Order: sequence, then C-alpha cells, then structure tokens
Amino acid sequence: MTEAAEVPVTQIDVNADLGEGFGRWSLGDDEALLDVITSANVACGFHAGDPTIMRRVCRQARERGVVIGAQVSYRDLAGFGRRPMSMPRAELTNEIVYQIGGLQACARAEGTEVRYVKPHGALNNVACVDLEQSAAIVDAVLAVDPTLALLVLPGSQLEVQARTAGLHTVGEAFPDRAYEPDGQLRNRSLPDAVLHDVDEITRRAVGIACDRAVETSAGAILSLTAQSLCLHGDNEAAVQAARSVVRALREAGVQVSPFVRSQ
Amino acid sequence: MTEAAEVPVTQIDVNADLGEGFGRWSLGDDEALLDVITSANVACGFHAGDPTIMRRVCRQARERGVVIGAQVSYRDLAGFGRRPMSMPRAELTNEIVYQIGGLQACARAEGTEVRYVKPHGALNNVACVDLEQSAAIVDAVLAVDPTLALLVLPGSQLEVQARTAGLHTVGEAFPDRAYEPDGQLRNRSLPDAVLHDVDEITRRAVGIACDRAVETSAGAILSLTAQSLCLHGDNEAAVQAARSVVRALREAGVQVSPFVRSQ
Amino acid sequence: MTEAAEVPVTQIDVNADLGEGFGRWSLGDDEALLDVITSANVACGFHAGDPTIMRRVCRQARERGVVIGAQVSYRDLAGFGRRPMSMPRAELTNEIVYQIGGLQACARAEGTEVRYVKPHGALNNVACVDLEQSAAIVDAVLAVDPTLALLVLPGSQLEVQARTAGLHTVGEAFPDRAYEPDGQLRNRSLPDAVLHDVDEITRRAVGIACDRAVETSAGAILSLTAQSLCLHGDNEAAVQAARSVVRALREAGVQVSPFVRSQ
Amino acid sequence: MTEAAEVPVTQIDVNADLGEGFGRWSLGDDEALLDVITSANVACGFHAGDPTIMRRVCRQARERGVVIGAQVSYRDLAGFGRRPMSMPRAELTNEIVYQIGGLQACARAEGTEVRYVKPHGALNNVACVDLEQSAAIVDAVLAVDPTLALLVLPGSQLEVQARTAGLHTVGEAFPDRAYEPDGQLRNRSLPDAVLHDVDEITRRAVGIACDRAVETSAGAILSLTAQSLCLHGDNEAAVQAARSVVRALREAGVQVSPFVRSQ
Repeated sequence: MTEAAEVPVTQIDVNADLGEGFGRWSLGDDEALLDVITSANVACGFHAGDPTIMRRVCRQARERGVVIGAQVSYRDLAGFGRRPMSMPRAELTNEIVYQIGGLQACARAEGTEVRYVKPHGALNNVACVDLEQSAAIVDAVLAVDPTLALLVLPGSQLEVQARTAGLHTVGEAFPDRAYEPDGQLRNRSLPDAVLHDVDEITRRAVGIACDRAVETSAGAILSLTAQSLCLHGDNEAAVQAARSVVRALREAGVQVSPFVRSQ
Repeated sequence: MTEAAEVPVTQIDVNADLGEGFGRWSLGDDEALLDVITSANVACGFHAGDPTIMRRVCRQARERGVVIGAQVSYRDLAGFGRRPMSMPRAELTNEIVYQIGGLQACARAEGTEVRYVKPHGALNNVACVDLEQSAAIVDAVLAVDPTLALLVLPGSQLEVQARTAGLHTVGEAFPDRAYEPDGQLRNRSLPDAVLHDVDEITRRAVGIACDRAVETSAGAILSLTAQSLCLHGDNEAAVQAARSVVRALREAGVQVSPFVRSQ
Repeated sequence: MTEAAEVPVTQIDVNADLGEGFGRWSLGDDEALLDVITSANVACGFHAGDPTIMRRVCRQARERGVVIGAQVSYRDLAGFGRRPMSMPRAELTNEIVYQIGGLQACARAEGTEVRYVKPHGALNNVACVDLEQSAAIVDAVLAVDPTLALLVLPGSQLEVQARTAGLHTVGEAFPDRAYEPDGQLRNRSLPDAVLHDVDEITRRAVGIACDRAVETSAGAILSLTAQSLCLHGDNEAAVQAARSVVRALREAGVQVSPFVRSQ
Repeated sequence: MTEAAEVPVTQIDVNADLGEGFGRWSLGDDEALLDVITSANVACGFHAGDPTIMRRVCRQARERGVVIGAQVSYRDLAGFGRRPMSMPRAELTNEIVYQIGGLQACARAEGTEVRYVKPHGALNNVACVDLEQSAAIVDAVLAVDPTLALLVLPGSQLEVQARTAGLHTVGEAFPDRAYEPDGQLRNRSLPDAVLHDVDEITRRAVGIACDRAVETSAGAILSLTAQSLCLHGDNEAAVQAARSVVRALREAGVQVSPFVRSQ
C-alpha cells in the first residue's frame, strides 16, 4: 500500500468565456486562454458570438482537447446579455434550445461536440434565485440533450432545480470575483466586485481547490465546493492571471483537467 | 397482370414555407397549410421565425407526419431575406450551419428531426446562378449532415454543385410563379411574377406533376421535372389554392407524399 | 350670457399605437385607426416599426391632421418591447433620444413633426413605478426637446418626475383595459386584463370622459382624470371599438380633438 | 502687394470614422483621433455605434471643435456594413433618414449638431457606381436637411447625382488606400488595398493636398482634387499615421481645418 493511495489527488476544471466577439468586433484573447483552460464556454450568438467565431473556437478547442460548452444568454447583443429580462418560461427555454443547437452544429462541423451548458451574465444571475428562469434553463437542457452537464453556482436555485431534474451539475467558483457572506457573487455594479491582483486571484484559486474555502468581501471564510474555476480573459492582465492560476494549481499538486471527457 | 401495374403511379411532394412570423408578428396560416402539404420549410430565425415558432411548427408537423426542412436565409429580418447580399463563402456557410443547428435542436425537443434544407428568398435566387453562394450552401449541408436532402431549382448552379458533392437533391417547381423561357422564375419585381387564380395554379400544378411541363410567361411550353411542388400560404386565397392543388393532384391519380420519410 | 357658456364643453384626445409592423410583417389597420384618432403613437424601430413604415404613418397622419408622437421602447424586437429590462439610467435615456430623433427625421421628411412622447409596453409599465427608468425617460425628453409633451398614466412615477422637471404631461386612460383598485392597469398576464366587448369599452370611454370615473376589476368606482383615451387597433374588432368610442363620445357632447395642435 | 497674397494658403479637412464600437465592443481610439482630425464621421447604429457611444463622440467632438457628420450604412451589424445589399430605392432612403435623425438627436442632446453625411463601407462603394443607391442617399439628405454636405469620392455617381440635386459635395481622398488607374479605390479584398507604412501614407497625404495627385497601384500618377482626407484609427499604427499626416500637412504650409464651420 503506497502513500499515494492515501492522499487522493485533488482535481479541478478551469473554464472561461470564449468567442465573445461579434462580426468586426473581437474581445479577449481566445487562443491564449485555450492554452490554459480545460473547458470553453462558447458564446452562442445571443449576447455575443457569430457562427464564424463559434466554428473557429470549436476548432481551436478541439485541437487542444478543451471541452466545449454552450454559453447561453438572453437575446441581447446591445447589452451583452448583462441586462436582466423577464419573459415567459417556455419562451426562454426555446431561446436556449436554439442557441445550444446552433453551437452543436458548429461543433459537429468541426468534428467535435458540445458537452455542457453555462448560462451567461444576467441570465445566470437571475437563474441563481428565480424559480421560473432556472426551470426554463433545466427544461432546455432536458429537451436538447439530458446528458449535457450544467455549470452552476453552488447553492443556487439553478443547481437545486437541475439536480431535481436529474441533470449532471458542476459547481463553479470565481477566484477573481468577490463573494458576499451568503455565497452569492458580489454585484458587478458594486465597488471591488472584480479582483485584478494576479497574486490574490491565484491565492484564492488555490484556496478554493485545496481548502474548499474563499474569503468573503466582509473578511469571513466561506466554505465552497467547486468542481470548476471560472477565469476571465478580457484583457492581457486577465490572461496573465489565468496562466498564474493554472501554474499555481499544478504546483500545489492539483490535477487541472476537464470535468467531462472532451469526446 | 393488371393494367395498374403497367401505369406506374406518379408521385410528388408538396412543400411550403412555414413559421415565417417573428415574435409578435405572424404570417400565413401554418396549420391550414400543414393539413395539406407533405414537407414544411421551417424558417430558422434569420429572415423570420423565432425558437418558439420553430418548436410549434415542428410539433404540428410531427403530429401530421409532415417532413421538416430548414429554410435557411441571409441574416436579414428587416428585409425578410429578400435582399441579395454579398459575403465571403465561408461566412455564409457558417451562417447556414448555425441555422440548421438551431432548427435541429427545436425538432429534437419536439421528438422529430430535420430532413432537408431549402434556401430562402434572395439566397435561393443568388444560389441559382452564383458559384460561391451555391458552394457555400453545399458546404454547410456537408458540414452539418450530408444525409440532408437539398431542395433546388432544376438546372440551377445549386443543383449542379450539390450533385457534384454527392448530396441528395430534390427539384422543385412553383405552380403559382411565372417561368421565364430559360426555366428561371420570373423576378418578383416584374408584373405577373406571381399567379393568383386558383384554377390556373391548380392546372399548372397538375401539368407539372403529370406532363412534366409548364407554360412560360411568353406562352411556350417548358419541360420541367420536379419531385416537389412549392405552394404558398401568405393569405386565405393562397391556402385555398394549396387545397385545390392537392385535391386535383389526387383526383388525377398522383400520389402526394414526402420525398423522404418523415423519420 | 348664454347657457352654453355655463356648461363648458368636455374635450378629450384619442390616441392609439400605430406603425407596429416591421419589414414584411404588418400589425393592425393603421389607416382605419387614423380616420378615428387624434394622436398617433408611432413605433420608433426598437419594439416595432421600420423607417419605411414610420414615414408612411407620418404622411398618413399629416394628411388627416392627426398629431404624431414617438412611441419609444426598449430595444426588443423579439419581445415586442413587452419584456421588462434593467439597464443603466443614462443608457436608457440615450436609447430613447435616438428613437425620438429617428422619428423626427421621418416626420420632417414628410413635412410634419413629432409633438409628444409615449413609452411603450414594459418600459411604460416599469416607468410607472421605477424611479430610475422614469427619470431616464424624462432626461431623454429634456435632452431632445423639452417642448414635447409626455403621455403618462395618472399617478405614476413617470408623471411625478415629468412634472417636477417641468414637462407638459398628458394623463391617459384605457377604456379597454381593466383597472386595479390602486389605479394601475391590470397586468396583461392576468385573466380579463383586456376587454373585448365593444359596448362595454364604449361605455367606459364615455364614463372616463364625462364622469371622470371607471369601474375597477373589483367592481368599485375609480376616479380618473384623463386628457387622452388610448384605444387599440390590433384586429377588426378593436377598430370597430375605436369607431364606436369616438362616435359615442361625440354623441355625448364631448369634443374629440388633440391635446396639442398638430403643427 | 506681398508675396503671401500671390501664394494662396492650401486648406484641407481631415476626416475619420468614429464611434464604431457597439455595446460591450469598442473599436479604435476615438479620443486620440479626435485630437487630430477636423471632421468626425459618427457611426449611426446600423453597421456600428449605439446611442451611448454616439452621444459620447458628439460630446468629445464638440469639446474639440471637430465637425460632426452622420456615417450612414446598410442595416448590417453582423457584417459591419461591408456587405453589398440590394433594396428598393425608397427603402434605402428611409433607412438613411432614420440614421441621420438618430444622430441629430444625440448631437442636440450634447449641444451640437450634424453638419454632413458620409456613406459607410459597402453602401459608399455601391453608391460610387449605382444610380439607384446614389440617388437614394441624395433623396435622404434632401428629405432631412438639404444644407447638410455630402462627403463623396470625386468622380463617383454619388458626386454627380448630389451636385445635380444642388447638394454641397465635398470630395475626399484616402492616403492609406491604394487607387486603381480609373480613380476608384482598390477593393479591400485585393492584396495591398490598404497601406500601412506611416511614411508612405504621410507622403501621399501631402501630395494629395499640395500637388493634387496620388500614385496608383499600377504606378501612374492620378490627378485628384480633394477637400478632405480620410484617415483611419482602427489600431495604434493607424493613429500614429493620422498624427504624422496632420503634422506633415501643417509643416508643408497646409491649413488643416473643417470644410464647414462646426456650428
């Protein structure tokens, strides 16, 4: 009996939002992030992303063995999906079904496939607490492909409903976002909602992976179990933070790998 | 040996454009047409159609055994896809891939599937003569699912390219549209491009199915082999024409049935 | 001194939403309504309406002496502006400024001008109670042209803020909508929110104009002072109701005329 | 009599496309360009630009005395207005009327005004040769405000039609674009259509201003009279080129100033 067997290897996935340009506009450095992450949340055309970008990201992800997920959103290019919207539950379900299908076809055209779903921006925020919208997302996954996993904030309504429906949920944590004492993400409109210091982001990421805990904005220690870390890549500093996080995780003995196999 | 065996039954498909509303707006009487036709060209959201409409039409089609096709278009809600557009070939391919995928997911959510592709409006017109755009359509079908059939105007560039690529093409004819001597459809902007007389439309439909011929706008007889008749349902008169056509076809001994099985 | 001088003539404006088609899609019978109403709320392209429709309605309104208003909305063609949205106050102001400007140019091109603003759908509903969104609307009117009037629900936050800012407000009432006891319109998602009986709509309209009162959905009598009645024209029945209302108002001695002069 | 009187000062305007972001996406460095140019072609929301960006650019332009023009386009966010489109002449006119009006309201809200119109991208290219589309642009300017100037390629159909209609036309030249022997701009899809060498761009700009000539892609000298130079600012190199051009023009004794007064 070896010591290794007694110390199970900690494993975590690292995801990021990709393909968030549109037509003439680009955003972030997709390729730099793809070299670091293990799961790619690909924008599906409703808050960002167009079919040409979607295919390119699918191809680049496949080449690197990065798993592809559908980053679904409200229909809101002008607001980048960051504006909460109300709509009938069935209508929201259908909008999500369509987006997943659009990405599935792009992935298939590149010889790969979609393995999970992640709600974007305001849709994700609302789905954390709203029964109708979280149910609408669950309905969409059930309708398109119940084997797709769903990236969720631990403790959210979305997680509760998805589990009840028998979906495979994957809890995610945000090392570069401030947490409120109740485990919710600090609203982006509030000060200090987003962290920028690479060392601090890195330290928090390792803490989440190894100690299952993170410091809240009020200074308390919040227990947090996550199977995936969400990183950002909007600017050069963010890309550097992503690289730093993954390097530090590996140095701490954490196995950085997808939560599902890529194909 | 019976006489029937010596006279093989003529068979033809009847298709129509469906689901061409958007949000608050509706267009045509989808259910009335679905009771008559055998193949439904479902708008995929780029010139018309939204995911809620798409799912409803898929469900109604499945209930009636009507085959579902993806009616793909330029991205042009404001112009209803009737404005010719130029764009790079790969970009057009990707736009079509996405639309097919969106409809596939809607169909799957309703327990059915997409069986063919039909380009809409200006895209279809341009693809009749343009090498790049017809190739872009063929590329899209190959990328998403090469078993999908493609509805084409007989003699068009699109037909040529699709056959060269090994796709299953289905030639369609338009009993309510005037034909030019070269077999092209008379441009909608010209007078008498669209026929409205139910008896005339019906007579032409039966002529196409049984005699493989139609009278051109110049009065000559044009030979025409079609496996599918395209009917319209924008208004009550069009729906009546559709009913009249299918009744007359059956009375003439023509078997009205899909060109592919519905599932 | 005549008796007439002692009995001041009751006057009221009649407004309706117009130009709510988009591209290939039409909605309602604009010309039939224009023959009846005195003020036209012209959709400005964000929930419905395109520049060609906008110019046509402006021309038809000018020909009939009907006053033109900008029916401004959230940017939401897919939801017809009926989905509540959150966004920063300044951003909402700018979206409204742009819409008013677009209609002003269309009106100018037709030799007429915009005289008032009316928020559409969910924007109007939210602005009845929300401080930020009602302020955003007021800011937009102040920025573009402070002489524009603003159609408001009496007692709403929008009315309060607009008056505080010194804008000319015009209170409107809805004879075909159910009222809650607090004077709010019954939510469209609830049963019996919209009335369809022509006689009842007509009776309520005359009651609002002459008695300044309407029956609530709970059966009580609600006092209501309105300078304008909002009618609808989505279908033939609605157009008939509009005609009936205006006829009955005139028979009751009410002067049906715009709240501002048309030019 | 002084020598100065015998050598009239050469004057030229310098324009650039600004405000070409959309929502979350930005493009180019508007402020850096505004410090250099004398006329700002502000995107009006159809190929790029949203009302918040439009107001910001109007404000920044006003603060610097830079003249504001409406950069009008096809309705094509996905293609950045670079895809040629066909549509009825009146429809195109109306789309342009609306865009000008939207910018006028934004300018008014910032205490300034729109002084000219410049077609963007594919619309400008098509209008150089197409009778219908050039006429549609002229109709729009006549309908909204006939005192607006129109930026045109010298020798184009647009210039011919605008002059015939009595509009104030301003010929522009492109020091960073290759010219064909017939005076047309080299198509962007061809190699070497866009120049990147700062020194070469600068030399060509001075040559156009002082010698009224530019070298074609074939090496010949093309006579060219322009009242405005169009510069680009998509990237840092382009901004540096713009600065270099204006500096060199001033050193060559050219007066760099708007072709109309800012207010």
